[in-house]
Amino acid sequence: MSCINVALLGFGTVGKGVYQSINSHQSRLEQVLGKRVRVVGILVKDLEKHKQSKKDGLVLTDSFEDILAISDLHVVVDAIVGCEPGNVYLKKAIEKGCHVVTANKEMFAHHGEELLALAKENGVTIGFEATVGGGIPVIQTIKQLLQVNRIKKVEAILNGTSNFILTSMRKEGHSFDATLKLAQQNGYAESDPSNDIEGHDAFFKGLVLSQLIYGKTPENHTTSRRGIRSITADFIERASELGLRFRHIVTLYKENGQIHCQAEPALVSSEHPFYQVEGVQNGVSIDTDLVGNIQLNGPGAGMFPTASAIIEDIIQINRPVPAAPSFVEFQEEAEESSKWVLFSDKVDIKLPYVSKVLARRTDKTLVVETDNIEEILTENPLVTCFSLKGGYLHTPEKVTI
Amino acid sequence: MSCINVALLGFGTVGKGVYQSINSHQSRLEQVLGKRVRVVGILVKDLEKHKQSKKDGLVLTDSFEDILAISDLHVVVDAIVGCEPGNVYLKKAIEKGCHVVTANKEMFAHHGEELLALAKENGVTIGFEATVGGGIPVIQTIKQLLQVNRIKKVEAILNGTSNFILTSMRKEGHSFDATLKLAQQNGYAESDPSNDIEGHDAFFKGLVLSQLIYGKTPENHTTSRRGIRSITADFIERASELGLRFRHIVTLYKENGQIHCQAEPALVSSEHPFYQVEGVQNGVSIDTDLVGNIQLNGPGAGMFPTASAIIEDIIQINRPVPAAPSFVEFQEEAEESSKWVLFSDKVDIKLPYVSKVLARRTDKTLVVETDNIEEILTENPLVTCFSLKGGYLHTPEKVTI
Repeated sequence: MSCINVALLGFGTVGKGVYQSINSHQSRLEQVLGKRVRVVGILVKDLEKHKQSKKDGLVLTDSFEDILAISDLHVVVDAIVGCEPGNVYLKKAIEKGCHVVTANKEMFAHHGEELLALAKENGVTIGFEATVGGGIPVIQTIKQLLQVNRIKKVEAILNGTSNFILTSMRKEGHSFDATLKLAQQNGYAESDPSNDIEGHDAFFKGLVLSQLIYGKTPENHTTSRRGIRSITADFIERASELGLRFRHIVTLYKENGQIHCQAEPALVSSEHPFYQVEGVQNGVSIDTDLVGNIQLNGPGAGMFPTASAIIEDIIQINRPVPAAPSFVEFQEEAEESSKWVLFSDKVDIKLPYVSKVLARRTDKTLVVETDNIEEILTENPLVTCFSLKGGYLHTPEKVTI
Repeated sequence: MSCINVALLGFGTVGKGVYQSINSHQSRLEQVLGKRVRVVGILVKDLEKHKQSKKDGLVLTDSFEDILAISDLHVVVDAIVGCEPGNVYLKKAIEKGCHVVTANKEMFAHHGEELLALAKENGVTIGFEATVGGGIPVIQTIKQLLQVNRIKKVEAILNGTSNFILTSMRKEGHSFDATLKLAQQNGYAESDPSNDIEGHDAFFKGLVLSQLIYGKTPENHTTSRRGIRSITADFIERASELGLRFRHIVTLYKENGQIHCQAEPALVSSEHPFYQVEGVQNGVSIDTDLVGNIQLNGPGAGMFPTASAIIEDIIQINRPVPAAPSFVEFQEEAEESSKWVLFSDKVDIKLPYVSKVLARRTDKTLVVETDNIEEILTENPLVTCFSLKGGYLHTPEKVTI
């Protein structure tokens, strides 16, 4: 079976996620592509630190020239941060005839236009799904699945760190500084958090979307960028009393022929789709002229969500047309929910064995968690029962009957 | 410029939406496909009723044989309901070498497997995006954008009528029967509503997803179907007191090698993504092994959302690879939000002109609707201002200052 040879630039969280996922999903990749996918080179900063990753058939190096020298290199995956040297590396890779997949939003926000032009010239493709919305397939949805639809406006939560801080401040009632510190301790914020909390990261992602939707980035004077640093615990509390939640939102639209891109904190009511996009989640709301509004929500960052975006991009570059069906491989199994709401019209509900009662309004309305709902229903033939989806923290109560 | 010739089976809401959208988006179709898309035939039941749609170059007929006889017919769009005659028509179209796009979920749930096999034999493609989730591109997302990801579970709100009734019962406090009647009056429910409210429609869509994800439909004994007819106003009220909302949910997963498909009412907490999928909206939550959980929400039915799904399918069948960029055509413009939340630390906020105050907590915290936020900020330099997204109905108040 022939191979698709991949080099990884960077072997941090994202690079390692791609490496592991290619290995764990090798048989699936073979089924979809009809080819093996092989990591043949990894560019690292510190060779000593990564020496345990050394193995036969893999070029592990701190010099990009060694990566470029690999014969039969098909795809270069950019998993480093910052404009340079990523930009120069990708230019050289494209000129060598390699396809490129990048997760580097800052670089792609600034150099996407020229890189796309260079790729076209050289007959190769650039995948950049991982630059926006982490694992949410927002780039490919706009590019492939909304081709006839005209996009009128995009609103998006694109920075998981900011959303985590805003969510956590509201839930815990702590100050911005204390919450940021907590986020840093938990790995949700960098030691230098300015890229996230000043809105740069979200704004870069807005620029990538602009490039995708409008073919170019907006002029400076029709953009604005504000981070969440000014959001105080007092603001959050007063907003909550109004029934509102803070979100950091990128808004992208065209007016009078000008592209506008705003990245700033805003408030959402419970009627807005972003009201429930909490923690490190991202959310994208797309207004089009045919479908109307559709929303995509999911993990905005993380090792495997980002790896997913990169590997699905490798598929898009290399896939035979039409795509192989998704059911070729055995699909993993899932567990069923075990939370239930019980309603009785007349008689009290009797719990026949040790159960966890999550909430009890009266003895005719209970929320229980159990692995044996059948037994409860057998003992209570007059009870109506519904499964309960989602977490449940409403007046918790634990009893043993 | 060459043409893609399309015939429509059925000229009700869906058929008309496709016809109008092909006309309104002709230039976009030409840019993406490099070809014109032309409706060359329409099959109707009652010729007399549709005689005003007659025109040159269009076969308007009540006989499917006339449609089949059209030379150079490329795509047949199935916009009729029920298993037959749709199934037989599509078989004949496929055997004639036509691509097929269908919005007919009942037919495709029962005959999808054989039709897909027949299409493969004949080297043509079947698009069925419009059978599930209306305008939400759920089929193509699973088929194309989650190719490496292994799907573990799908939960979905797939019947807009049921969701509208459940939402409306909670908001208005009316009985099931009164709400159903209202839904019928507003065109959200059919005069014979059993297909929707008994859960058949949602269950059919679950079968289509099963076919897509697992390559086959589940055995009868691992499926269950329950509609929403048993949900009383009393249940809804008691659930609300527990912080829960009723949804009609299709759950699809595999356990011990068996596919399970359940379509039934369940309760969701405010932590669940479906808590806010209200009214005729649909929502799909997909658990995979790489991305984790992603959600797609949007309009589950309607003339143009369904037309969008059908036309994007026509693109998928015919598109050159790689796809044309989405920015080729001028993108429409969008309006900015005009609701704002104003916070002041010390001084009272002064509104310098006639404004609509949507809520006032104190004179230091206001929600206003205005077209001239700049003037308010100029007059109140110490005020912090955030735009407000989403509808706002919290303690409304209207004052003129």
